[in-house]
Amino acid sequence: MTDTPTEALDAIARTADDAAHALALSAPAARAAALNAAADALTANADELVALAMDETGLAEARLRGELKRTAVQLRLFADTVVDGTYLDARIDRPDPEFALGPRPDLRRVNEPVGPVLNFAASNFPFAFSVAGGDTAAALAAGNPVIVKAHPGHPRLSERTAALVAAALEGAGLPTGTLQLIEGQDAGTAMLKHPLVKAAAFTGSTGAGRMLADIAAARPAPIPFYGELGSVNPVFVTAGAIEERGSAIAAGLVTSVGGSAGQLCTKPGLVFLPEGHGLAEAVAAASAAIAEHRMLNPRIAAGYAQRREAVLGAKGVRVLAPGEVRTDEDGQAWVTPTIAAVALDDLRAGGDTLLPECFGPLAILVDVPDGERYADLLEELFEGNLTVTVHRAEGDDVARLVRAAARRAGRVLFDGWPTGVAVTPAMQHGGPWPATTSGGTSVGTAAIGRFVQAVAYQNAPEALLPPPLRDDNPWGVPQRIAEAGESARWGGAGN
Amino acid sequence: MTDTPTEALDAIARTADDAAHALALSAPAARAAALNAAADALTANADELVALAMDETGLAEARLRGELKRTAVQLRLFADTVVDGTYLDARIDRPDPEFALGPRPDLRRVNEPVGPVLNFAASNFPFAFSVAGGDTAAALAAGNPVIVKAHPGHPRLSERTAALVAAALEGAGLPTGTLQLIEGQDAGTAMLKHPLVKAAAFTGSTGAGRMLADIAAARPAPIPFYGELGSVNPVFVTAGAIEERGSAIAAGLVTSVGGSAGQLCTKPGLVFLPEGHGLAEAVAAASAAIAEHRMLNPRIAAGYAQRREAVLGAKGVRVLAPGEVRTDEDGQAWVTPTIAAVALDDLRAGGDTLLPECFGPLAILVDVPDGERYADLLEELFEGNLTVTVHRAEGDDVARLVRAAARRAGRVLFDGWPTGVAVTPAMQHGGPWPATTSGGTSVGTAAIGRFVQAVAYQNAPEALLPPPLRDDNPWGVPQRIAEAGESARWGGAGN
Repeated sequence: MTDTPTEALDAIARTADDAAHALALSAPAARAAALNAAADALTANADELVALAMDETGLAEARLRGELKRTAVQLRLFADTVVDGTYLDARIDRPDPEFALGPRPDLRRVNEPVGPVLNFAASNFPFAFSVAGGDTAAALAAGNPVIVKAHPGHPRLSERTAALVAAALEGAGLPTGTLQLIEGQDAGTAMLKHPLVKAAAFTGSTGAGRMLADIAAARPAPIPFYGELGSVNPVFVTAGAIEERGSAIAAGLVTSVGGSAGQLCTKPGLVFLPEGHGLAEAVAAASAAIAEHRMLNPRIAAGYAQRREAVLGAKGVRVLAPGEVRTDEDGQAWVTPTIAAVALDDLRAGGDTLLPECFGPLAILVDVPDGERYADLLEELFEGNLTVTVHRAEGDDVARLVRAAARRAGRVLFDGWPTGVAVTPAMQHGGPWPATTSGGTSVGTAAIGRFVQAVAYQNAPEALLPPPLRDDNPWGVPQRIAEAGESARWGGAGN
Repeated sequence: MTDTPTEALDAIARTADDAAHALALSAPAARAAALNAAADALTANADELVALAMDETGLAEARLRGELKRTAVQLRLFADTVVDGTYLDARIDRPDPEFALGPRPDLRRVNEPVGPVLNFAASNFPFAFSVAGGDTAAALAAGNPVIVKAHPGHPRLSERTAALVAAALEGAGLPTGTLQLIEGQDAGTAMLKHPLVKAAAFTGSTGAGRMLADIAAARPAPIPFYGELGSVNPVFVTAGAIEERGSAIAAGLVTSVGGSAGQLCTKPGLVFLPEGHGLAEAVAAASAAIAEHRMLNPRIAAGYAQRREAVLGAKGVRVLAPGEVRTDEDGQAWVTPTIAAVALDDLRAGGDTLLPECFGPLAILVDVPDGERYADLLEELFEGNLTVTVHRAEGDDVARLVRAAARRAGRVLFDGWPTGVAVTPAMQHGGPWPATTSGGTSVGTAAIGRFVQAVAYQNAPEALLPPPLRDDNPWGVPQRIAEAGESARWGGAGN
């Protein structure tokens, strides 16, 4: 891997800008075919790509094969999203000489691509949040060229993926420069300042994300920066749920904490249980059954070891399952889950140490005394999160907890675990700061909405309108039409 | 007018936060009724409010009566928007055991209110972009309490409007603190930093907007800041259009530049014409027929006089209609339109002076020699704008100009003038920086989208779902449903 030299960046940005012009005019079917071609290329080269990923990240083969499949399916879902066209939010107001505020012109509004998008790839999902991952797929689907800043954790995989996907996109007829790769931290921050870059996406730590968000906001012309940063994903378990299925909850928790060595943004980090819950033994037993797993790289492992030590050393923290951190002869760390426990008052006193995210297979069980209400605790202890999980039984009154959760997280789950994020139209993977920086979702088809901007055309001749706004609707997309004297209504395809 | 004391701000924010909890649960019909009650209150008190506005802003009675009517209609349109419910973007993915990536849970996603919104009112629209203006209406419609920072240009009007509207909203059953007013620049910036404020809106100058946007971005928890800042609204006129209707273009231009003393964010500031267009006399004659108009306040008038002097003193600038700036015995300035002209090369050379917005009744006609292309000029000379206008005749090839315009402006107009912004579903009043800071539109019903955030519910019991996501759909809103094995499709009300 070689860092992209600073003097090469301007040409890369210009190539992307040239591609943006052509892409903006591309028909949905053409973009969809290209996204499907990219998915085909990933699938056809799965053996090679998974082998590279295993070597560079230490993630398990089954997990990586599943992640590659998810990445390919994600590209195909975005292909469907483009053809469906609902994301365009096409609106047509017919002229209305009798409008309440005086004659209304012919006005038509549609979401258009925003321009070149810079995507900072993540370490922990070498496929699904990397070169050909969700942010790339969403930005391409919206009709934007993408410049990916490779994550240094998997450089060879990044280069190979970029070569395959760029060739597939261009082979399907999209312009040269639709997907480009840059490498190196300096190249990434310099590109974030380039005036031709119009939006950026990022998945990673709160520290790095904040630094980049501040750069994006401080540009002479600021751009939206969609960062997906830290999250502790609190879980609240009622007494009723424990009574009904306590041992299943213990087992599910440990699986969710330990999977992929806990290196997931949705790993549950803090679990609130009624004092005297009696799950300690079941948790310890389930943890002991988890095989050791390599961490992504020594830097992340060192950060984890340090956080783990701090948590275990905090006042009042007890160890339910000690877990292990072992360094092999290559300097790579191997870990098993650590599950700690703490009383609520000690959590409050040690919040600076115990409340922030710990990236790795560690969770803290919090003993909550009678009389404390989960909804109040959620509001007292937490800022924005990607998820809040509620385990309850029939008849438990959790309505206020659920409303509080919806104000602090993008996803509220019931009786399950937040890891394993479905890629579907209704997914929301984002939340109030610091879960995400600029709103929106980075998983699911709604993610396309981050990479468009609305343009209205007033009294435009039919021939000068973009296709989704024309009366003959050549792309067959949904059009929301307000006739003279009428409220708006949906029309177009499928209606 | 008294500045809100710093020590009062926390209680105001807490009152808004309390209101947010109740408002988030309010049914669409209740919010719609309250918005309509606010519109009724404005209408019933029009005589008093318009008289206050005339005194404080110097705007003409007819314009202010029209603006008040627009403001009331705007509230009613948002009432319809709430009941319609399309803005909720309700999505339901049914569980799918056969989903390509493994069993899919029941996932449901809806747009929920973001929380207390801080709205910085504008000077130049004392109704439509002020206490009860578009940003307030949109934020309330989405279910958020609003704290308005009054503009110091019309303090008595702001206080009276706030009292009337707050009483109407509360009278219709919305919680106390749904609308609150604060006054003073220090109070505004301090409130922008308050952790309970979750989004902000602003209409005003690029300088003030940038200062506030930077504050919002630098918060420990950054929030979206929707600023509508400067715009020069370039106009491009083809030779064919001049041949077809040159004198009508001259007259229309002067009316658009002079209306409300040019104190509109959509005033056309630069008009590109083919060299030798022959409209100079018609422009001068139309200008001479415009009656003098008071400017909003001495500060804005001083800024205008300074900018006008700089423009008229720039190399190569000729005067087509000199216009006037006269100060009366009360220190208020009265103005008539100034129309200048310049050759393209002199515009390029003097761009630092000639290209920035001039807030007031001044426009510059640019003589464009043969061989220069408008699309290239637009890309060379302009950043983001609220509007770009094209005057053309049948057969003119303006396709590339229109594409370039759509990349640099939120609204592209044909054969008309950008002033006079329709309040409709398809309006887009925004554009790339510096036209707006965070995308979105501040006019039209799509403006509601700035004040919501998506929340997904996974495997939620029916009784714990928000109404728009329930199977029985008690609010009758559109629901986008993905059945197992099916793509998403729209259902629900009106489909």
